[in-house]
Amino acid sequence: MIIILKKDAQAESVRRLEDILKSKGISTNHIQGANQNIIGLVGDTSIIDMDNLYAQDCVEDIRRVQEPYKKANRKFHPDDTVIPVRDTVIGNGSLQIIAGPCSVESEEQIITTAIACKNAGATMLRGGAFKPRTSPYSFQGMGADGIKLLIKAREETGLPIVTEIMNSADLDLFADVDVIQVGARNMQNFELLKALGKSSKPILLKRGLSSTLEELLMSAEYIMAEGNMNVILCERGIRTFETMTRNTFDLSMIPLMKEKSHLPICADPSHATGIYSLIEPMSLAAVISGADALEIEVHNDPKSALSDGGQQLTPQRFADMMVKIKDLAKYLGRTLGK
Amino acid sequence: MIIILKKDAQAESVRRLEDILKSKGISTNHIQGANQNIIGLVGDTSIIDMDNLYAQDCVEDIRRVQEPYKKANRKFHPDDTVIPVRDTVIGNGSLQIIAGPCSVESEEQIITTAIACKNAGATMLRGGAFKPRTSPYSFQGMGADGIKLLIKAREETGLPIVTEIMNSADLDLFADVDVIQVGARNMQNFELLKALGKSSKPILLKRGLSSTLEELLMSAEYIMAEGNMNVILCERGIRTFETMTRNTFDLSMIPLMKEKSHLPICADPSHATGIYSLIEPMSLAAVISGADALEIEVHNDPKSALSDGGQQLTPQRFADMMVKIKDLAKYLGRTLGK
Amino acid sequence: MIIILKKDAQAESVRRLEDILKSKGISTNHIQGANQNIIGLVGDTSIIDMDNLYAQDCVEDIRRVQEPYKKANRKFHPDDTVIPVRDTVIGNGSLQIIAGPCSVESEEQIITTAIACKNAGATMLRGGAFKPRTSPYSFQGMGADGIKLLIKAREETGLPIVTEIMNSADLDLFADVDVIQVGARNMQNFELLKALGKSSKPILLKRGLSSTLEELLMSAEYIMAEGNMNVILCERGIRTFETMTRNTFDLSMIPLMKEKSHLPICADPSHATGIYSLIEPMSLAAVISGADALEIEVHNDPKSALSDGGQQLTPQRFADMMVKIKDLAKYLGRTLGK
Amino acid sequence: MIIILKKDAQAESVRRLEDILKSKGISTNHIQGANQNIIGLVGDTSIIDMDNLYAQDCVEDIRRVQEPYKKANRKFHPDDTVIPVRDTVIGNGSLQIIAGPCSVESEEQIITTAIACKNAGATMLRGGAFKPRTSPYSFQGMGADGIKLLIKAREETGLPIVTEIMNSADLDLFADVDVIQVGARNMQNFELLKALGKSSKPILLKRGLSSTLEELLMSAEYIMAEGNMNVILCERGIRTFETMTRNTFDLSMIPLMKEKSHLPICADPSHATGIYSLIEPMSLAAVISGADALEIEVHNDPKSALSDGGQQLTPQRFADMMVKIKDLAKYLGRTLGK
Repeated sequence: MIIILKKDAQAESVRRLEDILKSKGISTNHIQGANQNIIGLVGDTSIIDMDNLYAQDCVEDIRRVQEPYKKANRKFHPDDTVIPVRDTVIGNGSLQIIAGPCSVESEEQIITTAIACKNAGATMLRGGAFKPRTSPYSFQGMGADGIKLLIKAREETGLPIVTEIMNSADLDLFADVDVIQVGARNMQNFELLKALGKSSKPILLKRGLSSTLEELLMSAEYIMAEGNMNVILCERGIRTFETMTRNTFDLSMIPLMKEKSHLPICADPSHATGIYSLIEPMSLAAVISGADALEIEVHNDPKSALSDGGQQLTPQRFADMMVKIKDLAKYLGRTLGK
Repeated sequence: MIIILKKDAQAESVRRLEDILKSKGISTNHIQGANQNIIGLVGDTSIIDMDNLYAQDCVEDIRRVQEPYKKANRKFHPDDTVIPVRDTVIGNGSLQIIAGPCSVESEEQIITTAIACKNAGATMLRGGAFKPRTSPYSFQGMGADGIKLLIKAREETGLPIVTEIMNSADLDLFADVDVIQVGARNMQNFELLKALGKSSKPILLKRGLSSTLEELLMSAEYIMAEGNMNVILCERGIRTFETMTRNTFDLSMIPLMKEKSHLPICADPSHATGIYSLIEPMSLAAVISGADALEIEVHNDPKSALSDGGQQLTPQRFADMMVKIKDLAKYLGRTLGK
Repeated sequence: MIIILKKDAQAESVRRLEDILKSKGISTNHIQGANQNIIGLVGDTSIIDMDNLYAQDCVEDIRRVQEPYKKANRKFHPDDTVIPVRDTVIGNGSLQIIAGPCSVESEEQIITTAIACKNAGATMLRGGAFKPRTSPYSFQGMGADGIKLLIKAREETGLPIVTEIMNSADLDLFADVDVIQVGARNMQNFELLKALGKSSKPILLKRGLSSTLEELLMSAEYIMAEGNMNVILCERGIRTFETMTRNTFDLSMIPLMKEKSHLPICADPSHATGIYSLIEPMSLAAVISGADALEIEVHNDPKSALSDGGQQLTPQRFADMMVKIKDLAKYLGRTLGK
Repeated sequence: MIIILKKDAQAESVRRLEDILKSKGISTNHIQGANQNIIGLVGDTSIIDMDNLYAQDCVEDIRRVQEPYKKANRKFHPDDTVIPVRDTVIGNGSLQIIAGPCSVESEEQIITTAIACKNAGATMLRGGAFKPRTSPYSFQGMGADGIKLLIKAREETGLPIVTEIMNSADLDLFADVDVIQVGARNMQNFELLKALGKSSKPILLKRGLSSTLEELLMSAEYIMAEGNMNVILCERGIRTFETMTRNTFDLSMIPLMKEKSHLPICADPSHATGIYSLIEPMSLAAVISGADALEIEVHNDPKSALSDGGQQLTPQRFADMMVKIKDLAKYLGRTLGK
C-alpha cells in the first residue's frame, strides 16, 4: 500500500500517521518526489482500513498494491480448487452442465424437465424455489415445497441439485441440497455470506449486477473467511448501457479469474444475455474460454413458464445445443461430468 | 402495455397470446402497421409477467406504458406522505437533519457526537450498529450493543435515532429504534423488504449502487405491498465511471421523485461524494432542490474513526455548515425539524 | 411508434398532434386504456423527430416500435454483405486476421512485424499512423509518413492495409489504403462519417466506448446514407465498472449483430481486454461466435513500443495463437482469408 | 508514479526498466515489501507512456501519483482563470446566463427568442448551427447560414453568441463567433481540439457522455497545450443506467473541478436532465454550488422546434425561472453578467 502525502503535509500529522501504522505492525519507507512525497507500507496491509487513513490530515491519496483478497487469491494457493458435489466434482478440468427451469412450478414440470435435461447430457439440475423478483406482484417461487420437488427430481434422475437461497433463516431447508446458489442481488448480502461460510456446502456465488471482479472475490472471501472453501464463481452478465441484451456477458472474466483465483468458474449465458438465440454461441464461447461449468435455463414449456419465459430453452433446443457442446468438449479434450 | 408482433407471426400463436391475456382480464386492440402489427392491452397490466409474454412465438417486443409501481405512485396518491417519527414528522415541508457517525464505536464517541450534532442544529441522530463492509477483515459494527448506545444517546439528547438493519432475523433488536435504514447493498434484498413491510416503523430506503429510480420505487413497493406505508426514499449516490468521487450524486432525482411519488426524499451527500469538502455544497443543493431530509456523517474525531473516516465531518465543520443550511432554509421559508 | 397521452390531455392539443403527424404522411389509431390513452402510428416513422413530439402538451411518453436504422437492417436486406478488399473479401464466411502494431514507428518495425504476421497466418496488416491519445503529451503517430510505410509493407508482403483516420481533411492521404478505420472516440464524429460515406472504401467502424449497439448501427447508417455500403462493424470493448480489464469485451454482440444487421463483424480482443494473456482465449471465443474478422495487435518488440505496449503480442506469441486459431477454423469448417 | 514489480521479476528486466526511466530523466527508489517490491519514480512523469512500461516483463502494475494534467491543474496555477468574452468576462465570480434555442431555425425564430431571453435576464445567446444528431435522417442544422443569423441576433440584442463547431475545416466560419462550443460527442476529437488550441477564442468544452473528469481535463489540456488558455468546462450530464432522465447531472463536479482546476465551470441542466420541469431546480442547485455560467435551452415555440423540443423552455417559463435565479444570485451576493 502506498500513501501519497499532501504537498503541505505537517510533520506532526505525518508522525501521527506513522504511529497508527506502527501500531498495526506496518513499517514504512519514505520517497521524496519532485512534487510529492509518498510513503510505501511494508507488512500485512489487508487489515488496514483505508477510510481511517483518508481521515488523516496529511493524506492526499492511497493506492493499494496488494490484492485485498487472500483466501481466494491464486498467489497464495497456486493449485486449482476442486469441489466435490455428491459423486462428481467441479474444477478438475471436466465440464459440468447445470440445466433446468428458472423456477420450480410443479412436480410434473420439474420431473419432465429434469429427465429431458439428463437425456440431453446435463450433469446437474437447477431450479428456483425462492425467487428474487423486482416486483412484489410477480411469482415469488414455491419455497420449501419447491426444494422437496427438486429432491424428487434428483431421485428420479440422479442429477445433483442446485437452488438459490435468499435468507439465512432458511438455511435448514437447504440441508439436502447439493449446491446452494447466491443470486446476483445478494452478492453483497454479507449476513447471508457469513451464514453460508459456516456451512460446508458448495456455494455457487453469482456476480452482482454491477459488481467488479474484485468485489466478487471479496464476497467469496466472506464465505471462505468463515471456513467454507467450496466456492464457485459465476458470471451471469453485468449491467451496461446496452439495452438489446438483458445484461452484458463478461466472457473475459473466465480466463482472468483463472489467473487471479484458484476457484472454479461457472458461466450463465441465459441470464447474461436474456435472449435464447444467443445462449448457444455464448455457451460455446464459455467452454472454449475455460469455464468449469455452464448453467442453462431449460423449461419443458417456456410459453407457460411463470418466470423468465423469454430466455429458457425448450428441451429440443437444449438437446440440439448439447450436441455441439459435447462435440466441442471432445475437440478440446474435456469430459462432461466427472 | 403494448406488444409488437413479429413480421411472420402465425395466427395460431397470436390467438394463444390473446387467450392468455383474456384469462387475466385484459382486453386487446390491434393496430395494423406498415411494417409491423401491434397489440394494445387495456386493463390492469401490473399483474402481467412480461417474461411469460416474451416466450410466445409471435412476440417480437413488449413496451410498458403504465408504471409498474402503484402504492408509491403519485398518480394514485396525489397528496404528500407525511411520516411521524416520535414527536416530529418527515415530509411536511420542513427540513430534517439526520447527523451522526458512520459507526457507533463507544459510549463516549456516540454521546459526544450526538450532543455536538444537536447543538449544531441536527434534528435526528444516525449511527451504524450493523455495518455492511466490502471486506470481511474490516470492522463489522458493534451490533446489538451499538443499538443500546444509540438509545442512551437519544435519552441524553432527545434526538430520534436512525440505524441500519442487515438481516430480518435481527428485527426484534430494532424495536426501540425510530427509523430503520435499509442500505444500498440490500435495496433488492426482497426477504428483508417483506419483513420490514410487516413492521410499522418508518423505513429509510437507500437507492442501490447502480439501481434505477424505477427499481427504487419497486423496492418501496415491496415494503408498501405488505402494509407499511412509511417509506422514505434516499439518494446516496450511484456508481458511474467517475473515480474522483466515491459515487455520483444524482441530485435531479429529488424533484423527479417528488413528481413521480408521494414519498418523502432524503439526500445523503456524505456517501454520495465521499469527500468532505463536497458535503456542504451538495447539502445546500439538496435543500434548494426540495429534499425533506439530509443525512450527514459527523464524527467527534474522524481521524480515529473505525469506518468512513475520509467523509465524516468534524463537529466544527458540521456546525459551520449548519449555519449556512439554516440560513438557506430561512431564505426558502422552510423550518428545521417540525 | 406509439404515443402515450397524458391523463389530462386536452382535445385541442391532441388534434394539433394529429395534424403534425398527418402532414408527414403518418396515420393514427387510438386505443382507450383503463388509465391511459395511446395512439399507434402507421407509416414511415423513421423521419419523425421524437423531440418535436415530446414538446406537445398532450404527450406523456413515446415508444419506438421500429428500429431507426434501415440500410444496416437485416429485415430489409436479408443477405449478408460481402465486402471486397483488394483481392479478398470480408463477410463471406471466411475468417480474416488483421494483425500488426498499434502504431507505425519506423520502416524496420513495420516491415519486420508485417512479415512475421504474414508468416504466422495474418491476412491483413494493421498499423496506426494517426493516433488518438488521451494525453497531448503522448506519441501522436507518424501521420502521412506512417501511411507511406504501411504501403511499403504491403508491397513487401501483399497484405492489404488497415489504418485509422481522425480528420476528414486527411482523406486524400488514405487514397491508397485498403480499409479505413474509424476509432471508438470518433464513432459519433458525424462530419467524419459523412465524408467517409462519400468514399467507396471499406470502413472498419469501431463501437464507441460506451455506445449502444443501436448507436453503432446508426453511425453505420450515417456512412451508408451517403452511399457507401462497405461498412464492417467492430467490437473493441465497452466501458464498464470493471477495472481489471481495460474494457469489457461484449462478445454477445457478434451473434446479435448478425441477427439485426447484414454487415460483417470484426472483433478486436487487444483493445477489448488490454491484457495479452486474454487475447488468445477471447480470439477463439470470437471465432466460435461467428466473427468475420479479428484485429490483433502484434509488435516485433512490445517492450520498446511507443503505444499500447502492454497489450501487443510478440510475433512468437501471435504465431502460437495462430496455430490454435487455424485449428479451430478447420474444426468449424472456415477458411482463413479468401 | 509507482511501479509494482512481479514477484518473480528478473534482475535483468528490472535493470532494463531502470535504464528506460533514467533515459527520460527519472530517478528511482526501491521499496522491499513483504510480498511485493515496488519502485517509486521521482521526476516529471507526465512524459512517461504507461503502456510502454506495462510491456516490460518485470512490471505487474503501475499507479499514477501525480495528475497527468498540468496546464489545467490548480496546483500549478492557483488563481482562477477569468476569460474575456466581448465586453464581459466568465470566471470572476459573476454569473453568466447563456440562453437560446437548441437549433437556429430561422431569422424570426432566433431574433424573437434572443430578445425574449435578453428581456428575462440572459447575458449571452446560444444557438446551434451545426447539429450533431444520432440519426442521419434528423435535422442537421442550418450551417453557415445559422451563424449569420446568430450574428444578426447579436446586433439586435448585444448578447455575445455561443455556437458549436463539429469540424476543424469550418473554423473560418466561426471568426465572428464569441464562444466556440465543443459538444460532448467531440470531447475526444483530438484533431478538433488541437485546431481550437491554435485559436484564441474562448472554448466551451462539454464533458463527454461517459467521460471521467480526468479525461475532461485532459481534453482541456489538448487545447491549452497548443496555447489557448481560454477554456470553460461544461457539465451536461453523463450516461448512467437511469432512464427517467436523459442523462445524470453530476452536480458535484462543480465544486470538485473548482478545487482541481482554475478554469471556469458552466452547467447545462437542459441536456443533463432532458426534462423541462427539472431545469429550474437544477439551475438553482448549480448556482448555489458555484457554477460560473448556466446554459439553458429556450425556444420561442418549443412545440414547433426542429430538435430537442421536450427540454426547451418557453420564454415565459424561462422568465419565471430567471426571477428565482436573480433572487438567489442576490442572496449569494453574486451579480449577473459582468
